[in-house]
Amino acid sequence: MPKINRYVDISTVDREAKKDYIDRHSPFLTCAATAKAGQKFPVTVRVGKEYTHPDDNDHYIKSVALYNRETLLAEAGFVAGALGGQGQKGQAEVTFQIVPTGKKLELTAIAYCTKHGLWECDPVEVTVEE
Amino acid sequence: MPKINRYVDISTVDREAKKDYIDRHSPFLTCAATAKAGQKFPVTVRVGKEYTHPDDNDHYIKSVALYNRETLLAEAGFVAGALGGQGQKGQAEVTFQIVPTGKKLELTAIAYCTKHGLWECDPVEVTVEE
Amino acid sequence: MPKINRYVDISTVDREAKKDYIDRHSPFLTCAATAKAGQKFPVTVRVGKEYTHPDDNDHYIKSVALYNRETLLAEAGFVAGALGGQGQKGQAEVTFQIVPTGKKLELTAIAYCTKHGLWECDPVEVTVEE
Amino acid sequence: MPKINRYVDISTVDREAKKDYIDRHSPFLTCAATAKAGQKFPVTVRVGKEYTHPDDNDHYIKSVALYNRETLLAEAGFVAGALGGQGQKGQAEVTFQIVPTGKKLELTAIAYCTKHGLWECDPVEVTVEE
Repeated sequence: MPKINRYVDISTVDREAKKDYIDRHSPFLTCAATAKAGQKFPVTVRVGKEYTHPDDNDHYIKSVALYNRETLLAEAGFVAGALGGQGQKGQAEVTFQIVPTGKKLELTAIAYCTKHGLWECDPVEVTVEE
Repeated sequence: MPKINRYVDISTVDREAKKDYIDRHSPFLTCAATAKAGQKFPVTVRVGKEYTHPDDNDHYIKSVALYNRETLLAEAGFVAGALGGQGQKGQAEVTFQIVPTGKKLELTAIAYCTKHGLWECDPVEVTVEE
Repeated sequence: MPKINRYVDISTVDREAKKDYIDRHSPFLTCAATAKAGQKFPVTVRVGKEYTHPDDNDHYIKSVALYNRETLLAEAGFVAGALGGQGQKGQAEVTFQIVPTGKKLELTAIAYCTKHGLWECDPVEVTVEE
Repeated sequence: MPKINRYVDISTVDREAKKDYIDRHSPFLTCAATAKAGQKFPVTVRVGKEYTHPDDNDHYIKSVALYNRETLLAEAGFVAGALGGQGQKGQAEVTFQIVPTGKKLELTAIAYCTKHGLWECDPVEVTVEE
């Protein structure tokens, strides 16, 4: 409350409109499976994988936040127009460089759409090596 | 994932430490039960009601976000030190002035603690009158 | 670069359109002249004093930030629609509760309009008493 | 007011401590000189080029904002600890993917250090081709 929508594997979804709806709102994490402790580790968050989202003034992806379990690591804010503007579609995308510590990261991301609210992805485990 | 902690009525909680833990992390909404459409309507979000939270550099309330159902209305960011600083305690607090439309608001807030993650409050209904 | 627009006393400005333009974009600080160290001290930031700003999807006040000299104390983010929405006008407004330390605050605020960029106000001095 | 510190070419600066101070606080933009209209265009903002900044709880790079002239394109928020944590040093870095329109971008970035305030870089021109 607000509801947080959770990604569902769209290959299990029948209706094309629903596949599109889920995919274009979900944040996807791209990073290596293993990181070196104390070294820069790039993590990309992209909203939409196979589909694109409108970049309209009244309907756009406003932000993404990257968490390691319960802890915020970084966040990005976007504005309508930065993906081509009114009538265009795109995928909000940002790459953070974090420097991991500890033995393991459990990364998740939350995206916010100005019309369809909060969306989170499945967690991604990263092993941190000395 | 990240877990979002939900407020629990602390009068139902036995242990004093747990009452304190829950209360000092939970956002509380204060506003009138009825708003006038098209007129300024103050909504206060305060983190902690009967207890206070540290304002330490490694442990403070970093942000609150105010939602009407799934829609973000406003957000505030705080910094360590603005509530007295290292060794002090306080309640992060902000008052937004929103101008409601529609017939009803269903307000909630989410707070973020840099050590204990996301916390949300119970929704508060506001009737919007013409 | 980006240019930061600075408030100009509009009583010194001739053209009505320019008075309106300057006033509706400028953040105004309201707070007491004296604060008690270690006690809550409300500071209101309102964008526009005598004039109001559009709340359109492509043109709204997106944020305000409150500084004590060079140090950020708090910030607020607003969304189009929270002041009545498309075709309406209003004044973005937020009240922060800060707990001052030291002997003096020198407060300023910066507001951001999605069409007309960054605007700052004149600094306001607050004496902090033990 | 707050002062915005402007990057100075450190090869013109004598004192090593001052070179370090200026460089580690300044945002640096990396991107191609030419973009294709309507296509993704990566822009990296890194704070510090030859020097690194502390990642301490009371002293870290909190945010960067990317502007096209007066218009905010994207912003990123960082937390203490995400660059290795207390006692470590690093360079806050983020890569945004924007989709340019128009004929030219004039990019700048502003970074915020929790101890040393706002810092901006020299503008970078990007030609946008059809």
